[in-house]
Amino acid sequence: MSQKPIAITMGDPSGVGAEVTVKAMASLAPAARSRYAVIGDRPTLERALAACGLDMPLSDFGTQASDGALVVVHVPVAGLPGKFGVLSPACGEASFRYIERAVEMTTSGTAAGIVTAPINKEALNAAGHHYDGHTGMLAHLTGSKSSWMLLASPTLNVLHVSTHVSLKDAIGRAQPERVLETIRTGDRHLRRMGIENPRIAVAGINPHCGENGLFGREDDEQIAPGVRMAQDEGINVQGPISADTVYHRANNGAFDLVIAQYHDQGHIPIKLIAFDTAVNVSLGLPIDRCSVDHGTAFDIAGTGKANHVNMLAALDYAGKLANGKS
Amino acid sequence: MSQKPIAITMGDPSGVGAEVTVKAMASLAPAARSRYAVIGDRPTLERALAACGLDMPLSDFGTQASDGALVVVHVPVAGLPGKFGVLSPACGEASFRYIERAVEMTTSGTAAGIVTAPINKEALNAAGHHYDGHTGMLAHLTGSKSSWMLLASPTLNVLHVSTHVSLKDAIGRAQPERVLETIRTGDRHLRRMGIENPRIAVAGINPHCGENGLFGREDDEQIAPGVRMAQDEGINVQGPISADTVYHRANNGAFDLVIAQYHDQGHIPIKLIAFDTAVNVSLGLPIDRCSVDHGTAFDIAGTGKANHVNMLAALDYAGKLANGKS
Repeated sequence: MSQKPIAITMGDPSGVGAEVTVKAMASLAPAARSRYAVIGDRPTLERALAACGLDMPLSDFGTQASDGALVVVHVPVAGLPGKFGVLSPACGEASFRYIERAVEMTTSGTAAGIVTAPINKEALNAAGHHYDGHTGMLAHLTGSKSSWMLLASPTLNVLHVSTHVSLKDAIGRAQPERVLETIRTGDRHLRRMGIENPRIAVAGINPHCGENGLFGREDDEQIAPGVRMAQDEGINVQGPISADTVYHRANNGAFDLVIAQYHDQGHIPIKLIAFDTAVNVSLGLPIDRCSVDHGTAFDIAGTGKANHVNMLAALDYAGKLANGKS
Repeated sequence: MSQKPIAITMGDPSGVGAEVTVKAMASLAPAARSRYAVIGDRPTLERALAACGLDMPLSDFGTQASDGALVVVHVPVAGLPGKFGVLSPACGEASFRYIERAVEMTTSGTAAGIVTAPINKEALNAAGHHYDGHTGMLAHLTGSKSSWMLLASPTLNVLHVSTHVSLKDAIGRAQPERVLETIRTGDRHLRRMGIENPRIAVAGINPHCGENGLFGREDDEQIAPGVRMAQDEGINVQGPISADTVYHRANNGAFDLVIAQYHDQGHIPIKLIAFDTAVNVSLGLPIDRCSVDHGTAFDIAGTGKANHVNMLAALDYAGKLANGKS
């Protein structure tokens, strides 16, 4: 097992990130907490502990941690701590700085990987960091050209050919090379997760995969060629398979992974069967990054009510990735 | 309760239609069978009974039925009975003739509505009936301009703005007037099913409904205006709501109906949570028509293995519709 800590970015200090982090840490056995280091704001974490009615010592990263302590990398940012539930540029700046530090720690070999708590795009932009969210920021900070969003759950795993583009653009992006690269990326990831010969299904893009061209030719002309190229490389992949049944089949054990052709095609089934437990994993980056799959929830921030189940699932997945590497 | 029978079309005689029909009838209390009349081929039904190891008397429609008999409208078609599992023009012709007869019976007031067993499009076309399936055929036979596909299940109901068109075309079809008509149609149907003030959600078409135009403007320009018009008419409708969460919310009780913008958006969630129990209901026709949501399954036809749970669900829904009318 890797002895390097997994870096947890606290997310926007106004949101529920600090709360789900301390609640998740509190639910672990005290000795297990040393596996993690929270990149964030010490006073905000203390306030989150109070909001959740928890008591846990905080130790600075790099010092001798007391037993059961929450290890913290305190990143000083002007204007913090702010108020829970209030959007501010200071918190947007802080969100960015935590991720920047976590990337530095991971690329330099100090941390094993990153788990991110939610950030607020508007706050991020108000602070002058013009990204579409974590994905673009991580790609830029790691110098990556492209990445993929995996949504992982105990019964269904979905990897997206494209995500945050219009449905019209998504149809255009589902080209043979991108489909092939997505299949390759999924295959590599599942092998790393310990699956020997991953069974991959590629979802079609038109109803019934276009039914021999009756409802569009994209399945035959864009997706099928990508699948064939992957098969020629020896990858255990099938498709395109009609999207209306492939998620049901995969969820019942027929496949280890479904390649979704667009954002909602993958998100709808995952949110339906694993709303609280789906983990968002970035593939194709030089570092490992898992994330909770919920937002900052400003409306309940500071109340201690935020559910930490999703954070625990993200930490669990990051731990498996770190173990697979060492 | 309506005393007119519900007409069950036997579907393609080579498929599992006859088997799921006789199995469903056998599972009912004998007295309840008189509520239905099967439009099909008597020898094929007898063969299906034998394949399923069932014994049930058959009575001709319009004669005094013996207790617990299966009432049959025998439609003579040349070349029948054929063989289970073998595609043939004769069976395509028969499929058409059963539906034609059922429509006649329903429009003339002899039957209360129709439940359809699966047909085979290729056989239908080989017999010279050039339809895309039941939908086009029923629209033509009833002189309807448009219809809608409702997929109904115990926890989730989905009504589609469009179905069997390419995804690209589906984006173009989601126009304000069609969205409005779909909402109206769903609202009327749910009221007829006994829901007083149906809570309707309209799913968005782009990721996160386009996020203020960042990922496409169709949600703002095509879907939102349709929703507003429906709201102005007093319909209890919300949307567009991000598709990745709206099905989860509806399935957990937040809405009575979700309006899906395209085929797979509605089919993926329904197939995932109600694979065996979802009923396909045609709305917008002058007659009531429910259908099983599975195919002819030529591979297992004649073995008695076909599951009749979906047929029972379709019969149940058709019965509720018939009761609501009388």
